[in-house]
Amino acid sequence: MKNTFGTSVSVTLFGESHGPEIGAVIDGLAPGLPVDEAFIASQLTLRRPAGRISTARQEADAFRIVSGVFEGRTTGTPVTILIPNADTRSGDYQRGPARPGHADLAAYAKYHGFEDYRGGGHFSGRVTAALVAAGAVVLPALKAKGILIGTHIARCAGINDAPFGNDLSADLEKLNSLPFAVLDEGSGEQMRAAIENAASNGDSVGGVLETAVTGLPAGVGEPWFDTVEGVLSHALFSVPAVKGVSFGGGFSLADMTGSTANDPVRMENGKPVTVTNHNGGVNGGITNGMPLLFRCAVKPTPSIALEQQTVNPLTGEETALRISGRHDPAIVHRARVVVDSVTALVLCDLLALRYGTDWLSL
Amino acid sequence: MKNTFGTSVSVTLFGESHGPEIGAVIDGLAPGLPVDEAFIASQLTLRRPAGRISTARQEADAFRIVSGVFEGRTTGTPVTILIPNADTRSGDYQRGPARPGHADLAAYAKYHGFEDYRGGGHFSGRVTAALVAAGAVVLPALKAKGILIGTHIARCAGINDAPFGNDLSADLEKLNSLPFAVLDEGSGEQMRAAIENAASNGDSVGGVLETAVTGLPAGVGEPWFDTVEGVLSHALFSVPAVKGVSFGGGFSLADMTGSTANDPVRMENGKPVTVTNHNGGVNGGITNGMPLLFRCAVKPTPSIALEQQTVNPLTGEETALRISGRHDPAIVHRARVVVDSVTALVLCDLLALRYGTDWLSL
Amino acid sequence: MKNTFGTSVSVTLFGESHGPEIGAVIDGLAPGLPVDEAFIASQLTLRRPAGRISTARQEADAFRIVSGVFEGRTTGTPVTILIPNADTRSGDYQRGPARPGHADLAAYAKYHGFEDYRGGGHFSGRVTAALVAAGAVVLPALKAKGILIGTHIARCAGINDAPFGNDLSADLEKLNSLPFAVLDEGSGEQMRAAIENAASNGDSVGGVLETAVTGLPAGVGEPWFDTVEGVLSHALFSVPAVKGVSFGGGFSLADMTGSTANDPVRMENGKPVTVTNHNGGVNGGITNGMPLLFRCAVKPTPSIALEQQTVNPLTGEETALRISGRHDPAIVHRARVVVDSVTALVLCDLLALRYGTDWLSL
Amino acid sequence: MKNTFGTSVSVTLFGESHGPEIGAVIDGLAPGLPVDEAFIASQLTLRRPAGRISTARQEADAFRIVSGVFEGRTTGTPVTILIPNADTRSGDYQRGPARPGHADLAAYAKYHGFEDYRGGGHFSGRVTAALVAAGAVVLPALKAKGILIGTHIARCAGINDAPFGNDLSADLEKLNSLPFAVLDEGSGEQMRAAIENAASNGDSVGGVLETAVTGLPAGVGEPWFDTVEGVLSHALFSVPAVKGVSFGGGFSLADMTGSTANDPVRMENGKPVTVTNHNGGVNGGITNGMPLLFRCAVKPTPSIALEQQTVNPLTGEETALRISGRHDPAIVHRARVVVDSVTALVLCDLLALRYGTDWLSL
Repeated sequence: MKNTFGTSVSVTLFGESHGPEIGAVIDGLAPGLPVDEAFIASQLTLRRPAGRISTARQEADAFRIVSGVFEGRTTGTPVTILIPNADTRSGDYQRGPARPGHADLAAYAKYHGFEDYRGGGHFSGRVTAALVAAGAVVLPALKAKGILIGTHIARCAGINDAPFGNDLSADLEKLNSLPFAVLDEGSGEQMRAAIENAASNGDSVGGVLETAVTGLPAGVGEPWFDTVEGVLSHALFSVPAVKGVSFGGGFSLADMTGSTANDPVRMENGKPVTVTNHNGGVNGGITNGMPLLFRCAVKPTPSIALEQQTVNPLTGEETALRISGRHDPAIVHRARVVVDSVTALVLCDLLALRYGTDWLSL
Repeated sequence: MKNTFGTSVSVTLFGESHGPEIGAVIDGLAPGLPVDEAFIASQLTLRRPAGRISTARQEADAFRIVSGVFEGRTTGTPVTILIPNADTRSGDYQRGPARPGHADLAAYAKYHGFEDYRGGGHFSGRVTAALVAAGAVVLPALKAKGILIGTHIARCAGINDAPFGNDLSADLEKLNSLPFAVLDEGSGEQMRAAIENAASNGDSVGGVLETAVTGLPAGVGEPWFDTVEGVLSHALFSVPAVKGVSFGGGFSLADMTGSTANDPVRMENGKPVTVTNHNGGVNGGITNGMPLLFRCAVKPTPSIALEQQTVNPLTGEETALRISGRHDPAIVHRARVVVDSVTALVLCDLLALRYGTDWLSL
Repeated sequence: MKNTFGTSVSVTLFGESHGPEIGAVIDGLAPGLPVDEAFIASQLTLRRPAGRISTARQEADAFRIVSGVFEGRTTGTPVTILIPNADTRSGDYQRGPARPGHADLAAYAKYHGFEDYRGGGHFSGRVTAALVAAGAVVLPALKAKGILIGTHIARCAGINDAPFGNDLSADLEKLNSLPFAVLDEGSGEQMRAAIENAASNGDSVGGVLETAVTGLPAGVGEPWFDTVEGVLSHALFSVPAVKGVSFGGGFSLADMTGSTANDPVRMENGKPVTVTNHNGGVNGGITNGMPLLFRCAVKPTPSIALEQQTVNPLTGEETALRISGRHDPAIVHRARVVVDSVTALVLCDLLALRYGTDWLSL
Repeated sequence: MKNTFGTSVSVTLFGESHGPEIGAVIDGLAPGLPVDEAFIASQLTLRRPAGRISTARQEADAFRIVSGVFEGRTTGTPVTILIPNADTRSGDYQRGPARPGHADLAAYAKYHGFEDYRGGGHFSGRVTAALVAAGAVVLPALKAKGILIGTHIARCAGINDAPFGNDLSADLEKLNSLPFAVLDEGSGEQMRAAIENAASNGDSVGGVLETAVTGLPAGVGEPWFDTVEGVLSHALFSVPAVKGVSFGGGFSLADMTGSTANDPVRMENGKPVTVTNHNGGVNGGITNGMPLLFRCAVKPTPSIALEQQTVNPLTGEETALRISGRHDPAIVHRARVVVDSVTALVLCDLLALRYGTDWLSL
């Protein structure tokens, strides 16, 4: 289904970096959900580049909702959000040598040269603005049902943030208000310095995002194939630069023993809870009522100013490349709101499948 | 779609650990593919527990193909493989306290107690025998098209295997013939010793599987949502105990700079190739012609003999649990053929979508 | 997705006329639904050929449920039903000239001759036994929710049955107990005589099935694409020999005026009801709370004893063909339980999507 | 998936009658297909109301393609077409009594009153403009592959058009250039007079559309569920007012005998062809190489000026309703280009699944 994801609640993405508009269609939403345009704008601001640690490209993100919302609420029919591309300087980009680490060569093999190569075209991170707007339509509805989503930069340029604390919901609330989402501001300062340093070297850095979701009911997801992990990871790998997704203890579970990795269970307020959460809130593909926890590995931004060895797909010539123009020395701090948005949309789908199409508005 | 995965080529799984039969339906296969029952049997043997490092449960895996194969070749209509459950000792399992690290509590929340709890029921790793049989139907056809899949135990109980060497295809051929798939036999001996040690402690260990695929054409996959990473990870998280999936450098990319993580490109035999393969053969969600590389984190087997703290879902009582019966002190060595099988099925689907339903038999 | 249909509740079909077993996997069912094996058997009897108006092939239909049912109830995981093919006389069938009106030539073009041609292989009406068994799993659950499905032979060999009467539910109950489903027994006798007459001429006849569903809630279905009409017709065209599907007044609506075709609305017991039901219970693709009404055109059985002009797909030679062996002079009376079954499965899917996966068992 | 249809090639519809814009996203198209904006405009003109036999609403249909087309050709990424709603007079429409024959009551049950009721909202035939634009993107590409689609008004207000003649492709070419698509102009004049007559009575009329497709390869479609008939009918029932879909002889097959309904086969230019085409080019769900033939029953437009009995969904009051404003006394002549467009999109999907994503541009 390609640019459409989801079964009961789905999102369809379209647009190119230098086309007139990008956008998203969100289908299957419950009718009657309040749509908060100010919140959508604020989420877009979190994604938007800012300051020395991001590209200088300025995107106004003056979105328009052209369907599916009537008198401030979802109608239940497809919600379409359009975002014009205001600040496109096509002169910065022309078909040239393939940029290492980017999709240029893969796209050339797939589209035979008919792809819109300007600024990465449909592969551009720019398209995630539409994802963020789509996520912002549903995040308040999830919150109204007691489901809170938040992400911190668990690691950037080798620097670790503090781990989530005991009051997870408080951590998530705090993170959602921060432009640079770290739990420990000291670590955040070091990360920003490292990003600026990479920028001044013409280089870039990567990181790890850790996401938590509280308030999810137990019993969501499927044992085979449509596991919570499988469905979420499917969507998360669309967030540009994500090269790994893990749940709970993730790759560190590989080094544990069963007696440490298993989460002991006890009763709390009449419900079973686990003492630890190494399984990240999912067992056998199905939510167990504990917070959902997962990590995304974000590779360093491939667009760097340093000279790189590459080839020209049209001519097959080997060549050296220096990428000029506006670029991000790191994407990890901007990607976190994209991860939150993707998570929100996927959870809406899983919940609607489980509890029906009206559940989110009940 | 739950227990069915795939768009053009799909696999449907069914069955419970202690039911009469488990099985798989593989649909959408090209007609005319030779079906090699001896190879299916040998793949099932790779999955089957053996020796002191596995459960003592002996499964004959006397599979039957009841549809979709005629005169030794696929017909193009659904191939159904049934595997009887011969060695089921239901007495070993009764509804009891929830086993920590297993799906018991999540399943209880989802199915309200109607689930077949015996031996994990539909959640049992036993069901992967059907996946392996399904994969074994298509692996030879992929190989005939020059596509080779293989997995090694990159890490187990903290012990690393040697990395893939320069002749990747030779490594894959070698791995596919080994019952315990390591590139370095010395590391393999240490791993087996660690697994036996865990078993003697009543405990279990985990590991990391690394898979490579050679011979994939460039240009397969989609930029948003149906990325190669997304589709593969979706399916791989169904392999029991997998809690993380990463591509190429994976989580280690998070600590690199762009100048090291980007794969420089040069020409070789008239085709662009990358000097390194930190991106694991995928850029922008699409294959770039380099080998596909990914890793799966496998948690330690949750069934351990040591006493664990848990609750009874029926009564809500806290209790201590000692799991008796037959269990695996590690699953990682058995899971690798499951990973190969899932990979083969997913690639058949992606290739059929790209090149049409007959491609695999052309 | 080919041999799998449905989104939240799905059915996967497999098997060939002369293979060892045919079967179906029903996935996504609510847990806890009682499974009535005697009812499944009785539904299979309704489909089974009987007497002079059907083929002499005798199928025991000794089905086995091998997954998804535990202690007499659905578990919520895939239900697999296997039906052995007992009475296969492969000698009756060999690759020969293409049978006119059958799928032989189309299948040859699609499968390049690798298809199992014996008795129509996967195209055989035999496969509908699995559909009927699958439908029989869910029909009692729908009935328990007040949803009643029934079909009569509205027309056969040019002879009309009486139309549905004022007490639609009573009509449906009556039809479901009849081996030859007509509302007017006199018409039924004429139909049977016409079928016998066709048989004695070595020919066959067709008919029209009319189905009604009572008790469906209003508000099910989607405005575009996944309309109730669209989803149902998609599945109904899989019933062999169905060449037309229409809702409510169907093709006769084409000759009406708006003032007669529109269904006036009035209030009854506090709910809006329509005075007539020319729209068949669906407006804009969505149920309106009135009975669902639709018709299926069933073509005459293509297997006839009379000589026909055809070609041999292997050699390209023109030839005359007389089909020997066991055949049905009409399929319409056997197809009605298939239509009921397909309808039941599709409605389960639409209802689960609308109200959640547990709805059917609440 | 609701407002998205298709597997390899898909279309997503959005928008409301009185919203700012309606539109479609077409995904999965082969890269490199020329996009002919003048042809899109001309197809939209065929759909647009004209003269006394249509509503007086004038829609400029000034579409914009905002993604997926670069330098005049498809890129292979999603093509998005937006059509502004210029001539919306919301004053004409207010939440009032439910209009009989329309989706008003069904929508109210589904969306609980949150639906955009103005002009039918998302249910409006207005949305088909986006479908027509989407179809116009692919129709020339199909034609370039030798696949021709055309539809005539086979019947309107009880008046029959002439049947298709011996030179089917010539008929289709002719029909595609006609604003009122009939093969016999005399019948067309009678139909238009009947439509005008209905309009002057404040009433409306329906009809039957018959579509033919030439040049389709044999071997497309699936035996169960994703039959050509099933997939096409699924989409065709989304065309507003379509209440029946039949293939080949359709409902008239029900009255034939097998010896007349079966299509005898002979060889022509080394390929098997049928002497008649009662099966409409499809056997067993799969194309047989003969022209695809199907019919859609179109009910009379539900919006009529005559007084009708209905209820107010908000208050539950019974009331009489006279619909004022701009309405179509028939929709059948406008619907034919919608049917052609839907057919084109569905066939692109089936062909891409069969032959791969690049096939249409090869």
